[in-house]
Amino acid sequence: MRRCSVVTASTRKAVEKLSTMTYEVDGRIARITLDRPERGNGITFEMPRELAHLVERADLDPRVHVIALSGNGKGFCGGYDLRASAEALGRAASSAGQGASEVGARGADELASVVAPDGSALDPLVVAANHDPSAVWDPVCDYQMMARNVRGFMSLFHADKPVVCKVHGFCVAGGTDMALCSDLLIIADDAKIGYPPARVWGVPTTAVWSFRIGPEKTKRLLFTGDCLDGREAVACGAWPASTPPPSSSTRAPKRCSRASRACRSTSW
Amino acid sequence: MRRCSVVTASTRKAVEKLSTMTYEVDGRIARITLDRPERGNGITFEMPRELAHLVERADLDPRVHVIALSGNGKGFCGGYDLRASAEALGRAASSAGQGASEVGARGADELASVVAPDGSALDPLVVAANHDPSAVWDPVCDYQMMARNVRGFMSLFHADKPVVCKVHGFCVAGGTDMALCSDLLIIADDAKIGYPPARVWGVPTTAVWSFRIGPEKTKRLLFTGDCLDGREAVACGAWPASTPPPSSSTRAPKRCSRASRACRSTSW
Repeated sequence: MRRCSVVTASTRKAVEKLSTMTYEVDGRIARITLDRPERGNGITFEMPRELAHLVERADLDPRVHVIALSGNGKGFCGGYDLRASAEALGRAASSAGQGASEVGARGADELASVVAPDGSALDPLVVAANHDPSAVWDPVCDYQMMARNVRGFMSLFHADKPVVCKVHGFCVAGGTDMALCSDLLIIADDAKIGYPPARVWGVPTTAVWSFRIGPEKTKRLLFTGDCLDGREAVACGAWPASTPPPSSSTRAPKRCSRASRACRSTSW
Repeated sequence: MRRCSVVTASTRKAVEKLSTMTYEVDGRIARITLDRPERGNGITFEMPRELAHLVERADLDPRVHVIALSGNGKGFCGGYDLRASAEALGRAASSAGQGASEVGARGADELASVVAPDGSALDPLVVAANHDPSAVWDPVCDYQMMARNVRGFMSLFHADKPVVCKVHGFCVAGGTDMALCSDLLIIADDAKIGYPPARVWGVPTTAVWSFRIGPEKTKRLLFTGDCLDGREAVACGAWPASTPPPSSSTRAPKRCSRASRACRSTSW
């Protein structure tokens, strides 16, 4: 605690503009809340980037002892926002043969705010073109894009401080990557959890299901794309207990508060 | 190459302000040049952060096929800038007992521009206090700080594209972390390479010496802190050949140019 004596009230403010989530420090708890409720907190390119940025911010804030992750609205996270991808694909199709001037038309797209040069693996047009069913799929291009999302999700896994995730409503597809990369889960009895896109797109990118529930149960889920509710997830061994809704909203803060006291190192 | 067809001339400009290095795209080569010649390109907190940022920028630029790393001035890199650390320690000592108002005095320090809350492991006063020989050293606090430098250096190791590093003059201490995390080295016969701080501070943080020249030769170097010149490094098996100065300045671009043609994937 010696070094904490130099902490002042005039904490520098990070210069940031968040578009997919909110951040709040509440006592010893840093609350990261996915905040795209109108799209089921659907994942865009910005989301994993902002997540990693905020995890680093919480890690470096000596006031913070635990990170609380949750979602605003009806559920935790519905996975990747496929509407944004579909719109980019539509623009890519309409611009075919019309030259570079069409590229400017995507200015309104939220994906366009990602700092990435045109033609890079993060360019929405490149991503859309690589998901055109009539064309050849380039796995390297896909890896270059998706690896950056995985790094964002895994910032939770590699965080210096414990991460408690509250799962309510739906937690499916890419949303499970964030939940399963967290340390502790508070899960509602009636939450829907699973990875249906395994039926068409293969295994989850962060590959932590097996780490949580072992290879056999993981295969049962991912070979079928079935979803579990909170009670089934407990029976699966994924979590110690589920909780009736809406008490997940009250249990999560209590668990965070206990963790924030327990997980206090000498220097933080 | 299909996806590259959407590249336009109006490449988005990344918003950035560099303080420790320069960046230039020259044909297929992205040149990252350490640029603190007045301090022997000494490493500050900003340097590994800016390095990782620029490696990501080069990775995402479809024009770039290879990254060329070098140093401006008399040598490649002389390691961590200990003067900056000493100055922070001096301020920490002078502010002891004077309250929080003293903290503002460090505003002019280049380290203060790092976005990190007061009291974090990146706070110059925290770092200085943890290097006070009369106080207890906290290894966790040190890890929290140094791990972020290591991530910056290792961005070269994990880069999507090949990294060619030109070593001239001196490449010692923390400077070797960047050189050894690169893929290919162009090294001058008379360059001085080694890790003298092993005598007092232990092993290099990126731990890639053994990966390059094997455990026995690594121990010979790090148990003694001895330096090698370019010819000795070749004899050590670290590099295929050294080159007489100043031809390293002409050989490096040639090697980069050849690598930029060879390392071209279908999608980049």
